Amino acid sequence: MSSTELFSKKKVVDAHERIKPFIHKTPVLESSAINQLAGCEIRFKCENFQKIGAFKMRGATNAVLQLSDEQKANGVVTHSSGNHAQALAKAAQSLGIPAFIVMPETAPKVKVAAVKAYGGQITFCPPTLIARETTAQKIIDEKGATFIHPYDNVEVILGQSSCAKEVFEDHQDLDVFVCPVGGGGLLAGSILARDYFSPGTTVFAAEPEGADDAFQSFQAKKLIPRTAPNTIADGLLTSLGKLNFPIMLHGVENVLTCNDEEIIAAMRLIWERMKIIIEPSCAVPLAVILKNKTLFSGKKMGVILTGGNVDLGKLPF
Amino acid sequence: MSSTELFSKKKVVDAHERIKPFIHKTPVLESSAINQLAGCEIRFKCENFQKIGAFKMRGATNAVLQLSDEQKANGVVTHSSGNHAQALAKAAQSLGIPAFIVMPETAPKVKVAAVKAYGGQITFCPPTLIARETTAQKIIDEKGATFIHPYDNVEVILGQSSCAKEVFEDHQDLDVFVCPVGGGGLLAGSILARDYFSPGTTVFAAEPEGADDAFQSFQAKKLIPRTAPNTIADGLLTSLGKLNFPIMLHGVENVLTCNDEEIIAAMRLIWERMKIIIEPSCAVPLAVILKNKTLFSGKKMGVILTGGNVDLGKLPF
Repeated sequence: MSSTELFSKKKVVDAHERIKPFIHKTPVLESSAINQLAGCEIRFKCENFQKIGAFKMRGATNAVLQLSDEQKANGVVTHSSGNHAQALAKAAQSLGIPAFIVMPETAPKVKVAAVKAYGGQITFCPPTLIARETTAQKIIDEKGATFIHPYDNVEVILGQSSCAKEVFEDHQDLDVFVCPVGGGGLLAGSILARDYFSPGTTVFAAEPEGADDAFQSFQAKKLIPRTAPNTIADGLLTSLGKLNFPIMLHGVENVLTCNDEEIIAAMRLIWERMKIIIEPSCAVPLAVILKNKTLFSGKKMGVILTGGNVDLGKLPF
Repeated sequence: MSSTELFSKKKVVDAHERIKPFIHKTPVLESSAINQLAGCEIRFKCENFQKIGAFKMRGATNAVLQLSDEQKANGVVTHSSGNHAQALAKAAQSLGIPAFIVMPETAPKVKVAAVKAYGGQITFCPPTLIARETTAQKIIDEKGATFIHPYDNVEVILGQSSCAKEVFEDHQDLDVFVCPVGGGGLLAGSILARDYFSPGTTVFAAEPEGADDAFQSFQAKKLIPRTAPNTIADGLLTSLGKLNFPIMLHGVENVLTCNDEEIIAAMRLIWERMKIIIEPSCAVPLAVILKNKTLFSGKKMGVILTGGNVDLGKLPF
């Protein structure tokens, strides 16, 4: 199947309808204080209020719902210590199917507890990618469980597209949409939604300097994975997926980067002015907007606040 | 004028209509995780999203709008280091009139900066009540400015009543309304709104043990100010006002108290589960609900989250 067929308008619409009963339609908030500072009008889509506290609920739910009955019976598996693990566990729990989650022994207790609370069956492994992959493969072989990749997966990308779709449906006047990029699931989904529902909107990707593989890959027009990424935006450490990259290459105007200091300042601004809790990764779009004021001056902007799962005992301010 | 005339239904309605152009109609949020824990259904009215980050904007705005043109020209004055100072400065700024704010020299820099940002003219004084009152009186004498008390003021109470009124208008099925009590401005306003718009709803006051003058006064049926209050809920340190007490005595079912540990736990629960930022004072109602589960079992509850102005550098967790 061609990429156009895999990600057709019908598939985007169907994915959204499919997951609607299992997700929140999250609110869009605006802050006059932040607008004044930024010199533009920013509509923040609050996925920190989504189930499990992050947009990942959308993609994981769509992936689980698309399984055959036999696949459902055997369960799903992923290796992750982040929001995708919680999302997959919760999505599987909603449908009463098993979720096997491979987590590094070093995963924060709060994340382990969250996955358990959503009924996920955890297998611990050493904190290396090879150990994670081997452990997941063992579960696939033994249980016949289906592996659900956090972003390099057609159904996950289609699920994530519902988030920007909701924004474009309710705000038809957006000049610009700024999306954070890690593995590229949300970015690819946002580009699909823009293509079908708001073709006049320009999409920018926002990325931390310490994990700038999307920036490098966009410049070089070829996939360059980042080795040893290092940024406070821990949801954006991963490198771009193979399915995600060509969609990004076709769909974004540019990839803008910012450093951790700028991310922390933008995060604090959102906490203090909007009184909502967001993860560091969510602050990357606002940080690049504040860094490129001339570029966005007077524009109507859409931004997804991707999640709100932070360890309150380890805040950067 | 009798108390009934001072606080008539028409006055409550008029105050709300008067301030509408200057305030946000804040959203009401619900958390299924918290409902499950509490064993009841709680609708949280999010005044942390109000202008200046607290419900105090309502009362201050109404008080300023009710001034004569001559009074407006001479400006307003108050002594406060809390949300009322910011609210009065902002309300006065909206109308282009001077606001003189007396603050203790020891006031946190962040609060001083906020009052300045809203155009308030600050006079510092030693951190004692007598110094604050003397300094305010000097400004009244010199400038002819009108003193606006943070809670013991008819127009302030009428302004605060708009908050519960919004809740009752949108949620007509509430069995119980729980309101935090400090000076009693919000509580008195909530009781008025209940009397006129939701007479079937029972109102409870929630108070920190370390500042339990409302509890003591309610038991004794006479006003007993609290000396040396001490609680993390710094918005509730003040003692009940003279205007506020009789309204509370007539209108609340009971005053329920909780300790600081319970307040911090409830605050953390709201931060973690609802992803919103609230002050410790806001958490007192949820803390008493969790402490009195049997009393509220299965009930439909309304709670005002009063504000979100916290110092992110000094969190209790």
